[in-house]
Amino acid sequence: MTAPILSLADRMADIRPFHVMELLRRARELEAQGRDIIHMEIGEPDFASPQPVIEAATRFLARGDVHYTPALGITPLREAIARFYQDRFGADVSPERIVVTPGASGALMLALAATTNPGDTWLLPDPTYPSNRHLVRAFEGVARAVPVSADSAYQPTVAAVEAAWQTTTRGLVVASPANPTGTLLDLTQIDALRRCVHARGGHLIVDEIYQGLTYGVEASTALERMDDVFVVNSFSKYFGMTGWRLGWLVAPEGYAREIERLAQHFFISASTIAQQAALAAFSPACLEILEARRQAFAERRNTLLPALRELGFTVAAEPQGAFYIYSDISALSDDSEALARRLIEEAGVAATPGIDFGDNRPQQHLRFAYTTGQHRLEEAVERIRRALV
Amino acid sequence: MTAPILSLADRMADIRPFHVMELLRRARELEAQGRDIIHMEIGEPDFASPQPVIEAATRFLARGDVHYTPALGITPLREAIARFYQDRFGADVSPERIVVTPGASGALMLALAATTNPGDTWLLPDPTYPSNRHLVRAFEGVARAVPVSADSAYQPTVAAVEAAWQTTTRGLVVASPANPTGTLLDLTQIDALRRCVHARGGHLIVDEIYQGLTYGVEASTALERMDDVFVVNSFSKYFGMTGWRLGWLVAPEGYAREIERLAQHFFISASTIAQQAALAAFSPACLEILEARRQAFAERRNTLLPALRELGFTVAAEPQGAFYIYSDISALSDDSEALARRLIEEAGVAATPGIDFGDNRPQQHLRFAYTTGQHRLEEAVERIRRALV
Ligand SMILES: Cc1ncc(COP(=O)(O)O)c(C=O)c1O
Ligand SMILES: Cc1ncc(COP(=O)(O)O)c(C=O)c1O
Repeated sequence: MTAPILSLADRMADIRPFHVMELLRRARELEAQGRDIIHMEIGEPDFASPQPVIEAATRFLARGDVHYTPALGITPLREAIARFYQDRFGADVSPERIVVTPGASGALMLALAATTNPGDTWLLPDPTYPSNRHLVRAFEGVARAVPVSADSAYQPTVAAVEAAWQTTTRGLVVASPANPTGTLLDLTQIDALRRCVHARGGHLIVDEIYQGLTYGVEASTALERMDDVFVVNSFSKYFGMTGWRLGWLVAPEGYAREIERLAQHFFISASTIAQQAALAAFSPACLEILEARRQAFAERRNTLLPALRELGFTVAAEPQGAFYIYSDISALSDDSEALARRLIEEAGVAATPGIDFGDNRPQQHLRFAYTTGQHRLEEAVERIRRALV
Repeated sequence: MTAPILSLADRMADIRPFHVMELLRRARELEAQGRDIIHMEIGEPDFASPQPVIEAATRFLARGDVHYTPALGITPLREAIARFYQDRFGADVSPERIVVTPGASGALMLALAATTNPGDTWLLPDPTYPSNRHLVRAFEGVARAVPVSADSAYQPTVAAVEAAWQTTTRGLVVASPANPTGTLLDLTQIDALRRCVHARGGHLIVDEIYQGLTYGVEASTALERMDDVFVVNSFSKYFGMTGWRLGWLVAPEGYAREIERLAQHFFISASTIAQQAALAAFSPACLEILEARRQAFAERRNTLLPALRELGFTVAAEPQGAFYIYSDISALSDDSEALARRLIEEAGVAATPGIDFGDNRPQQHLRFAYTTGQHRLEEAVERIRRALV
């Protein structure tokens, strides 16, 4: 059979898949053969959605009234998010600035589509969550990598941003805690980046999707300090609601009304069930569950990090958030994709090779996600130990 | 207070809101004052989601396991959609060609992003569902209106498409049944448009979101006749699941794999709850409910259409599908926005002025949606009659 000749837009040549999907396919194959695979490649909490959220959804569903909502989201949810910023962070955020979206994915899409002209360049740290690069490309912008290293905790420095800035640069996207590195920016660092970006007439997007998942450091938000940046967040990670597809964007004053028009055409609205359920996500009962989960993540991290180091993985910048450990494998292999394949075949352990996060020495890095239970992590470490002998 | 100076992408100047939202706001204001408003501006079924769908969602939620799905959708749902095409329409569609999306909105976004280069022109009938125009613009394409009239049942003719085609033209989007006109294209007409478009190297997108909602005509799909066009569909309208945000795209062979990469970055996946619930949408019990609803829509249409005509609204092309009546108001007013305002203020009836659907004599048209019960429609007709005296 010959492949059909496709007539695609040029951008499609630049849109890369999540490579880890190949690995996941192989994992599923092995599982179908009866092999036990420990999944450390998965970028989502293994926990079920919190019970109060499920109950709220079930109650709402019983009414059956699942219609479109306003494009910016239902008012009670926008107000609940604003209250959460106030109660937890002392940050004063008007509900008017909050756009409820289908995941942080939808928030990033709206922020980029609303600001990016063809040819505009966005600075993105490398390694980073790959979708940002592709969303920039989708709207005909140009993603420009700012290589980051363990020296700056894998976060871009003001000096690096200044050096990378060009006349066509539109802005900078950072994440704290970050994927794949689990590293943070403190508010002083974010503020310095903001000044640097704003002095050049650009936009700063701060992706706080892993907010709340920090270990040994208090959670924070850029909104405590500033109101003139775009802040992206989601119910996916801390709130354990990935499959519900719900997130939000906090925009600087005046932008939400503009973005509303885009949201109407892109999404009409975010899932009504998810919006109704998310109202329960901020309840004391739910926050208690989430705090217990955060502690479970902390324990997993505290098991896995020293164990990986002992096995010869180098973790030069301390991960303090999210649920990832980004390890340098130089002492073990010079090809992270080959190592990932070997780990899955010989140890039955799946991890994500660096290639999914950019072009900055991807062959030298593997990301381990501690999105599986403590015993499984210990088992994984043992299996990796045996495979590496 | 002075408005903040915003730094937006050029495309934002071309993205218009749904104007009906202003009207809806006014309706809510009047309702808050105690006025009773009959909503005939709403483009979604008034029915609750079908009980089998709600039950499936509730069962799934009880398990709590609401994680991301593959970007193209869960396999059982892609298979169920393929079976539906087979069982209902005798159309042979491989599940591999089916991309599950967040609504038809997501399907249209993927199809346009995957095929549109900057400057590429898409032909869209005018009047039409407005988001298509804005999605084309979002990806830096150019929407070119093909004015259509009652003479061709508000559908583009081959001659009109030929005349409008330019070297930069990328394709044509049609909808059957169409919004705002409720008119159909038969398979012979779609096939003729397909030949015309393909002869010029373009793509044809057929939006079948109102499939199943036809009156006096059997439902059909372009896929009975052809497999080389993009077909868009959704659980929003016939299946009564707007707020769930679930739809799908059937792509010509070979495209789904390419589109998968885009879907990963745009959406990660569609709502897991909606996907699981939609498995019940094709059950005999559910289809029976939907058929009863279709008959209710048919009765409403058969009440409203002659009543509007009697009041002086001209409906020159017989609407045979969806839940809309697109009326020419020339005999009553020369300004559909003014008439819409008058109807809402004096009659407490909300309808959508033509401006939401394009630039083809919008001041001359009002769209009435029969998305409210029979008695309310009769009441609306009486109130309009009194207001027009
Ligand atoms: C840094 C980062 N941003 C955004 C997202 C998108 O997540 P969602 O759309 O589920 O909110 C992810 C998902 O892994 C992520 O890691
Ligand atoms: C013709 C047409 N296409 C697509 C859509 C998008 O609907 P959804 O995203 O809910 O499937 C609509 C909604 O009204 C429509 O009328």
